[in-house]
Order: sequence, then C-alpha cells, then structure tokens
Amino acid sequence: MTTAIPKMMKALQLNNFDGTAALELVEKPVPQPQAGEVLIKISAASVNPSDLAFLNGDYKSQKKPPIVAGFEGSGEVVAVGAGLLGRYLLGKRVACVAADGDGTWAQYMITKSNLCLPLQKQITDEQGAALLINPFTAYVLVSLAEKAHAKALVQTAAASQVGRMVERLCQHKELPVINIVRRDEQAQLLRDMGARHILNSSADGFEGQLSSLCQQLQASYAFCAVGGRVTGQILKALIDGGTVNIYGLLSEELPVIDTLQLLFNGKQMIGFWLPVWFAQQNILTLLRIGFKVQKLLSSTLASTIQGRYALPQAIEAIKHYAANMTEGKVLITPN
Amino acid sequence: MTTAIPKMMKALQLNNFDGTAALELVEKPVPQPQAGEVLIKISAASVNPSDLAFLNGDYKSQKKPPIVAGFEGSGEVVAVGAGLLGRYLLGKRVACVAADGDGTWAQYMITKSNLCLPLQKQITDEQGAALLINPFTAYVLVSLAEKAHAKALVQTAAASQVGRMVERLCQHKELPVINIVRRDEQAQLLRDMGARHILNSSADGFEGQLSSLCQQLQASYAFCAVGGRVTGQILKALIDGGTVNIYGLLSEELPVIDTLQLLFNGKQMIGFWLPVWFAQQNILTLLRIGFKVQKLLSSTLASTIQGRYALPQAIEAIKHYAANMTEGKVLITPN
Repeated sequence: MTTAIPKMMKALQLNNFDGTAALELVEKPVPQPQAGEVLIKISAASVNPSDLAFLNGDYKSQKKPPIVAGFEGSGEVVAVGAGLLGRYLLGKRVACVAADGDGTWAQYMITKSNLCLPLQKQITDEQGAALLINPFTAYVLVSLAEKAHAKALVQTAAASQVGRMVERLCQHKELPVINIVRRDEQAQLLRDMGARHILNSSADGFEGQLSSLCQQLQASYAFCAVGGRVTGQILKALIDGGTVNIYGLLSEELPVIDTLQLLFNGKQMIGFWLPVWFAQQNILTLLRIGFKVQKLLSSTLASTIQGRYALPQAIEAIKHYAANMTEGKVLITPN
Repeated sequence: MTTAIPKMMKALQLNNFDGTAALELVEKPVPQPQAGEVLIKISAASVNPSDLAFLNGDYKSQKKPPIVAGFEGSGEVVAVGAGLLGRYLLGKRVACVAADGDGTWAQYMITKSNLCLPLQKQITDEQGAALLINPFTAYVLVSLAEKAHAKALVQTAAASQVGRMVERLCQHKELPVINIVRRDEQAQLLRDMGARHILNSSADGFEGQLSSLCQQLQASYAFCAVGGRVTGQILKALIDGGTVNIYGLLSEELPVIDTLQLLFNGKQMIGFWLPVWFAQQNILTLLRIGFKVQKLLSSTLASTIQGRYALPQAIEAIKHYAANMTEGKVLITPN
C-alpha cells in the first residue's frame, strides 16, 4: 500500500565540501519524477567510503553542494515519470543508486529508472541498501576477470568491503587472488578469512614480491581502487596481455604509467564505475545478475552493519563511521 | 632461382648502446632457420626512427648488443625450418620484421615465418622494405579506430611517416584527424598536404584547444607515439568512452594518467606493437590486409626515399638520416 506523498521531506544536505561538519538536517520539497525517472521513498541508505570522499570534495563527480548526500539506498518506488521501465518499477521495492542530483540520505529521492534493481522477497530493505555499490561491484568485477580468462587476480584495498567480497567469491571459484593491503591489521583480517596471498604495499620488497607472485600464479587481471604508485606497480607486475581495471581512487595521487607495458606487453588500463556500467546494460542482464547477487547476499556477499540511525542521529553516526570504517556499514533509516 | 647460400655474410653490428658510433661492419656466419623460422636474403632494409632509438638504447626491447640492428626489410626466403607457413613462403619475396635476434641490416636474416608478408608482383623490393613498420601500422591503426566507431581521431607525431600516412588515409575516408606536432615546420608540412586540424603541443593554450576541438569533432580515438605529458592531455581531451592507443614512445618521459578519466568517463588505454599484433592474427587476415596495403603503397601509403646505400656506406648514411629524418627514408641494400 502506497501512502500519500507529502509535500515536504527531511534530508541531510551537504552545504560545502567541508566533510561531515558541512552536513545539515534540512526540510525541502519532495521532488517530482520526470520522464525516465522514479521517486523512491527511502527505507535505508548506506554510508560508504565513496560518500566520505564526496563529503570532503575528493570524489570529483559533477555534483556540487548544496546537495543531499548519499550514493546508495533502498526503498519503494512511489511515483514515476513517463517510460516503460518506470511503470514496471512502480510499487516495487528496489535497491537504487543516486543519479546526478540529490542523493539517498533523505526521506525521498529521485533517480533514473535504470539505476534501480527490484528486490526479491527474501531480501530485507537493509540488505537492499547495501546491495549495489559493494556486492554488485564485487560480483561484476570478478565476472569481467573471468570473461578475460584470468587464471589469477590482483586487487588493492583488499580489506575493504568490496575487497573481502572479491576474496570470498574467488575462494568459491578457486580463483587465486593476490590481495594488496596497506597495513598489517588489514593483512590479519584477510588471513583470518582464509586468504592465501596477501602483500603489504608499505613493506620492503613489495614490488619484487608482487612481480614474482604474478608470474607464479599467471595473474592477468587486477582491480585497483587505490590509484597512485601501486597502480603502476601492478600494471608492470601482471603477465603479458594483462588488464588493470580502475574502480576507485582512494589515494589522491595519480599514477605514473610505464606505457612500454601497453606498447610491448599488450596490457591495458580500463575503468569500472557502477552508474556508467549500469546504464550500458540492458534490463535483462541487470535482472539476471541482480538475481545472482541477491542469492549470495546473506552469505558470500553479506555486509557487516555497525548500526542504524534515523536522520537526526545520522550525522554523529557518520562521524563515527569515518573513524571506524572496518567495524562495518552505517545505515540511515530516514522514514 | 635461388643461388647457393654462403657460409659467411656481412652485417652492421651494434656493439653497445652508443648510437651510430657503435655500429661496425662485421663478417659473421649465415644462421640456420629452426622450426617456425625462415632465412631471408635481404634485398633492402630500412632505417626507421625506432632503429635510431634502438641504437641509443632507448627502445627498451629485450634485444641486447652485440647484435645486428635493423627492424624491417625485404628479401627472398631462401631456406626454412619445419612448419607449413615456412614451406609456403620458401622462394617468395617477402616484407619482414626482425624477431628477437639479429636484424635486417645484413646480407641474411633469420626471422619467424609469421613476421613475413609475401609481396605482390608490382611491389619493388625497395617498396617492400618500407611496407610493414609504417604503411601497415598506419593502416591497422586507422582500422582499429574505425572498428571502435570513431567519428574523429587524434594523433601525435603527426608529421612522422606514419602520421602523414594516417592523415592521407583519413582524408580519403573523410574522417577528421586532429594532428599534434611539436614544431611549427612540422605544422607547415601537414598544412601543405591539406591537413585541416593541426595543433602544436608546445604552443600556449594547447590543452584548451585540444579539448574544445575533441568535443567539437567528437574525437574518441587517439594514436600516441610520443608518451609523456601529451598522453595524459589527450586522454583527458577525448570524449567519454575514448581510447588512447600507444604505438610508440618517442619522448622518454612516462605519462601521469588521470585515472578518473578511466573511472568516470569510460576511457581506456591500450597499446599497439606490430610484432605482437602480427602474431595474434591468422595468416588469412594478414594476407587480406597486406593486399590492401600493397594496393595503396604507391599512392596514399607511399614513403619518401632519401637514398640507397650498400653496407660499407650505410653507417655514414644512418648518421645523416639521424639529423635529417623528414627528408625521407634511408634504405640499405646489402647484397
């Protein structure tokens, strides 16, 4: 049952790129969906590392404050603009990512119809709020590597939520992963979950170890969420014909690339960004992958939740999350 | 008629990476082809910019002195090792590139069977000696851009032999090319052949001009033979989804890459190196493309020859070429 849509809503607005200090709880009008858009009553919205980067102005998307933050969430589609896909989604529970405008940290959000994925019955709204940016990304990245016939993978930020999901997915597939972390406690976390190949990029001899491990395991595909120096090191270490797929930029350095690796060794550098990838797929592909990801959502692709907060408490919770990311996800429940 | 193969041959050997000063005319044994290899009696060998880079140690291939230099030539296949392709080539005139060992600046050279292309009757040995590294590369690069549905191209080193061939090929196809050069006289050379879009990367405001021209013409594919700063500038300037294809590294700087372009804008960086590409194609594809390239070899894909030299005179000629590259190609005729 869809209840009446109010005129006004509460939202966490980012007033400038000064981080969590620039977040403010505001009242603003509930927007109206145009053609190709849907209006979602948000049940749960997650806080991801990319959100924190956005708050600090480090995410470098086109979005500019003042704007409602939040890249990801779940909820019910309560109104739609013109378009077949929107009509199909009306009344359904969906996982969603924000489009170019206001985000998910609000009672309502407008997004594009093709940035929504219908949720199956067994998936809770909370699980749905953490379905796309981490589990879906991990699943698609591993699929891309498999399509490229990779015998072994390399990944940076291996102790992140996506990194751990990649490791678990690959354990099931018996596909070796060379996990790169930056701190010893991250290495321990991966060791505890059964990861076999873990390298610390801050350790002496890292580059040599990475190269010999890549040769030994014939690693030809890498996911890099870090950027900077390590990106160039990985490009060099992969076997001939290898691919570095950039899906994030946690460090703010830009990598220096040994183009000889592209020239003589048939390597390539590509990028993966969920909204762009989503928009390139047809709805059947998305539903098919969405089905598989939801099946794994309570096991291999489960997220750890550290707490749930209503909008008035959320700002404090986000500050806590910023300092304690490995404790798990913070969820905002705005309605 | 194949004449008897002598035991010894003359060759230009590079003794160390000290450039033309390290070239020496030597006598050495004629080598014997193994399985998958052919022995070619060289009719003509060309001197390319990549050869000069190799002499200086700037080419960064696996080859190490002392070694016979020369990446490209033409001649007759006079002996073959085991293998079907070799038997097909025996007695034929071919264009060829060197494999991992000694090169074309000699009376005889061993190379892999799949690094040879049979010459048609109307093609002279001299034309054949300048068929693969420039015309073939230009033709394949433009084909790759067409396959990627490019509406306009960008290229660096636009006044080079390959660059001018790309411009001429694209004039026929009415495919706009944004030509990047480093000096005004190179711009003039391109203007004289009817090029419409020419930018000097050393001029003030280059980056802005490149960006707006790329947007205006919807340029989505670039060939870069330079490396360094300009590679990163081009990656940034291309429209979303664009590809930078590295096919050389004339400058010795490595580029700093804005990985956000890969992440958010669906761009990619790949490489093209003729021997690798050759080895990936089947013989029918090579013959088909070879046929088309040879048809264009006296018009669109013609090379300018500045002189022909026997081996004893060649060292002086190579020194002259190094200082006057735009005058045209130097050919070595060793037999």
